[in-house]
Amino acid sequence: MIIVGELINASRKAVRAAIEAQDVAAIQKIALDQLKGGANYIDVNAGIFVGKEPEYLKWLVEIVQEATGAPCCIDSPDPKAIEKALSVHKGVAMINSISLEKERYNALLPLIAGTEHKVVALCMSDEGMPETTDARLTIADKLINGLVQNSIPLDNIFVDPLVQPVATKDAFGVEFLEAVEKIMTTYQGVHTMCGLSNISYGLPIRKLLNQSFAVMAIARGLDGLIINPLDRQMMANIIAAETIAGRDSYCANYLGAFRSGKLE
Amino acid sequence: MIIVGELINASRKAVRAAIEAQDVAAIQKIALDQLKGGANYIDVNAGIFVGKEPEYLKWLVEIVQEATGAPCCIDSPDPKAIEKALSVHKGVAMINSISLEKERYNALLPLIAGTEHKVVALCMSDEGMPETTDARLTIADKLINGLVQNSIPLDNIFVDPLVQPVATKDAFGVEFLEAVEKIMTTYQGVHTMCGLSNISYGLPIRKLLNQSFAVMAIARGLDGLIINPLDRQMMANIIAAETIAGRDSYCANYLGAFRSGKLE
Repeated sequence: MIIVGELINASRKAVRAAIEAQDVAAIQKIALDQLKGGANYIDVNAGIFVGKEPEYLKWLVEIVQEATGAPCCIDSPDPKAIEKALSVHKGVAMINSISLEKERYNALLPLIAGTEHKVVALCMSDEGMPETTDARLTIADKLINGLVQNSIPLDNIFVDPLVQPVATKDAFGVEFLEAVEKIMTTYQGVHTMCGLSNISYGLPIRKLLNQSFAVMAIARGLDGLIINPLDRQMMANIIAAETIAGRDSYCANYLGAFRSGKLE
Repeated sequence: MIIVGELINASRKAVRAAIEAQDVAAIQKIALDQLKGGANYIDVNAGIFVGKEPEYLKWLVEIVQEATGAPCCIDSPDPKAIEKALSVHKGVAMINSISLEKERYNALLPLIAGTEHKVVALCMSDEGMPETTDARLTIADKLINGLVQNSIPLDNIFVDPLVQPVATKDAFGVEFLEAVEKIMTTYQGVHTMCGLSNISYGLPIRKLLNQSFAVMAIARGLDGLIINPLDRQMMANIIAAETIAGRDSYCANYLGAFRSGKLE
């Protein structure tokens, strides 16, 4: 499972304040805590700062990598902000995200074509958000083909089938889960990834629903998650789910997590 | 989701003692607690009492139904014990379980043929326990056909594909889950049911694995569980899983459970 730590997001009050105050230590602590919690990539998002986003995103990449040496997941809807942040990123980054929206697609593709960077391919187009499995598959197919034709190997592509709230429509969970399975079996070698919280939007005790959803998605083949790696209960559930889903040889990962106290 | 409360099982020390002491109040309290916790059937099992099992099982049915009015799940490998317990059961019972083992099959079939009773059809044969999805399907097919030919409607059949420990073989979880999905789609109208604890046998923090397994099985269509309905965390996870799996119109069951304090 590839874990992207989601906490360095300026929509969170404390992070916003730390960015405005240019508080290096505060940001670096969040990055290090997430790395220790099991994150493979540290997401950086400064999307709320209109105008200043590119500068802040670049600064976040610099100080996060200085502290952790870990790769960042550069998270912005603005290709210019991504370009600026990428210019200082050391090693292979993850770009979050390209989509089939024409403007975004055309601006981002040149930045990643032929590179080694990982890219999140979000199933969204100018026609809006897909609701069904088939609509997701149609977009995923175009994104994957476009990226592969631009020398991005399947192994560097993380398709995000786009989570929609089950409170809006009963079938939204199932449509997403089937899309994960179809993408993973149709394009062998590609990855799938998502955040969780949209699924439970508008409902109480969201962590219960998020947890069920994560477990089901792992059963269908999902191998990337954008989450809070400091949420010990969620992390333990992910480890258990991989074991039940047959993705943990001799239960070695589960037993290792138990011995290092991560399951309680 | 059909919940069978598993607590009145003589392999549990307190239950064994209560049965030996013929302590009606103690047994009736466990039955009532499970009913309140959400059980649809109260399992009764006196299998450890060699020789006395039929008499004890009959007594359990009588006092459980006296207190609850609920149907029992009559749980024994011995057709004679089931017959005796069934003779005093009021209304539709659940028989746990018939299997393809010849002796058991031939002895139990006459007891249930043409009745309204529910029957758990365990995927076990004289050749032993099935390991793969296909082996489970082969047994399930014979059981379902045999039962239907004896006037037992699909709606009264609960196939138990037989859970085996993931610690024994990495794929045992996946093989079971695929069997659930195939049985539910091939024999529209049939039910699937299982206990959970075998999946985590031999591993630590078993509740984590049991919970993941339950959530995944619900996603594949499982609609019956033999569990402890007093385990609030498990019950909350089951409710959330049904919502995510699209089996909760307008999230009404989830919201109702929230309002009645069952999710925390």
